[in-house]
Amino acid sequence: MTLKNHPLLITFEGGEGAGKSTLIEHLLARFEKLNYQVMKTREPGGTLLGEQVRNLLLHQDKYPIGSISEILLFLTSRSQQIQEVIKPHLDKGYVVLCDRYNDSTIAYQGIARGVGQRLTQELCTLACNYLEPDLTFVLDLDPKVGLNRTQKMEKEWDRLESLDLTFHEKVRGAYLKLAKEKPNRIVLIDASLPAQAVIEQCWQAIEKRLLVRT
Amino acid sequence: MTLKNHPLLITFEGGEGAGKSTLIEHLLARFEKLNYQVMKTREPGGTLLGEQVRNLLLHQDKYPIGSISEILLFLTSRSQQIQEVIKPHLDKGYVVLCDRYNDSTIAYQGIARGVGQRLTQELCTLACNYLEPDLTFVLDLDPKVGLNRTQKMEKEWDRLESLDLTFHEKVRGAYLKLAKEKPNRIVLIDASLPAQAVIEQCWQAIEKRLLVRT
Repeated sequence: MTLKNHPLLITFEGGEGAGKSTLIEHLLARFEKLNYQVMKTREPGGTLLGEQVRNLLLHQDKYPIGSISEILLFLTSRSQQIQEVIKPHLDKGYVVLCDRYNDSTIAYQGIARGVGQRLTQELCTLACNYLEPDLTFVLDLDPKVGLNRTQKMEKEWDRLESLDLTFHEKVRGAYLKLAKEKPNRIVLIDASLPAQAVIEQCWQAIEKRLLVRT
Repeated sequence: MTLKNHPLLITFEGGEGAGKSTLIEHLLARFEKLNYQVMKTREPGGTLLGEQVRNLLLHQDKYPIGSISEILLFLTSRSQQIQEVIKPHLDKGYVVLCDRYNDSTIAYQGIARGVGQRLTQELCTLACNYLEPDLTFVLDLDPKVGLNRTQKMEKEWDRLESLDLTFHEKVRGAYLKLAKEKPNRIVLIDASLPAQAVIEQCWQAIEKRLLVRT
């Protein structure tokens, strides 16, 4: 059986512990079962330059990184991932499931950290050479619940996770703002629901919005 | 005697061997003699992050760097330099003489390497948070002459210098285009003239355009 040629970029956004990874795994399996060419990707993964840049971002105690420089580093990694991984797969007709994309940068750096939504948004658009997702899921969850979940997983908290609750509440508010501003692209999902319900809601949105053409 | 408080950002552009460094040294001395607070800076110098990013850019053989990612890395370094060095000095009333700035990125990457002038220009503007030079000198020189000069200096050729002559001719054309488009900010200087003549022309432009207020 030939695999379907149906390029789509679907991005997954939300705070820590909202369940993005589990959701992506399930959707990936669902696409595969229906014979779609599909892949998942997460930042900064997949490129050597991305790993180098990630190292820079993880050592902010050694050298100061300004707020715009930080955004530029995230975007360097994303731009490289687009060129090496995302764009070539879209060109081959893959569905690409992407764990975090520009909305993360806009929510975390642009809005919650106060760099400015418009400046950040424009930087993102240019750095990604205007590549926009076909669909974005924002997994909305009370940060207290989300952070509790990640602690239960005994994962080592990274720099972002260890910031205080107020910050995570700002991030949540930022995502809600973005979802309101881009209703055609962003689907807001209640991530406090059981995993299976979240998966079903997302799949229905994908079927309704993206797969009608097949 | 109190030093003058007169913030100015003056940038120096042009191909290799055009004589930017010598010119900057002389202008710096001239400003000092007139009791201006003055400093010079060159990329990626001055910040720890800039040095890290420079290392990344120098090792493109180890990991591929896409054309937009490359611009983002240059801009990361520049943005950090603005935050740590340039902006604080301007705020204190310094004249800042800057060896290369956004016009380099637009000429080399945007135009000569073909990323696109508009995209590059917009990225530069945002990354520098709209900080524009008060005055820019473009030292115009036939690249054959310029590259000969750098070889005579027995300096180790960096990556950019070792690219072929056609590329350097494109860069020269790009600078000429920019000078034509921004006549209020950019002063074109014939860098084939003797050093003393170049210095005098630049100083006259500075006096005429920037120091009338003092």
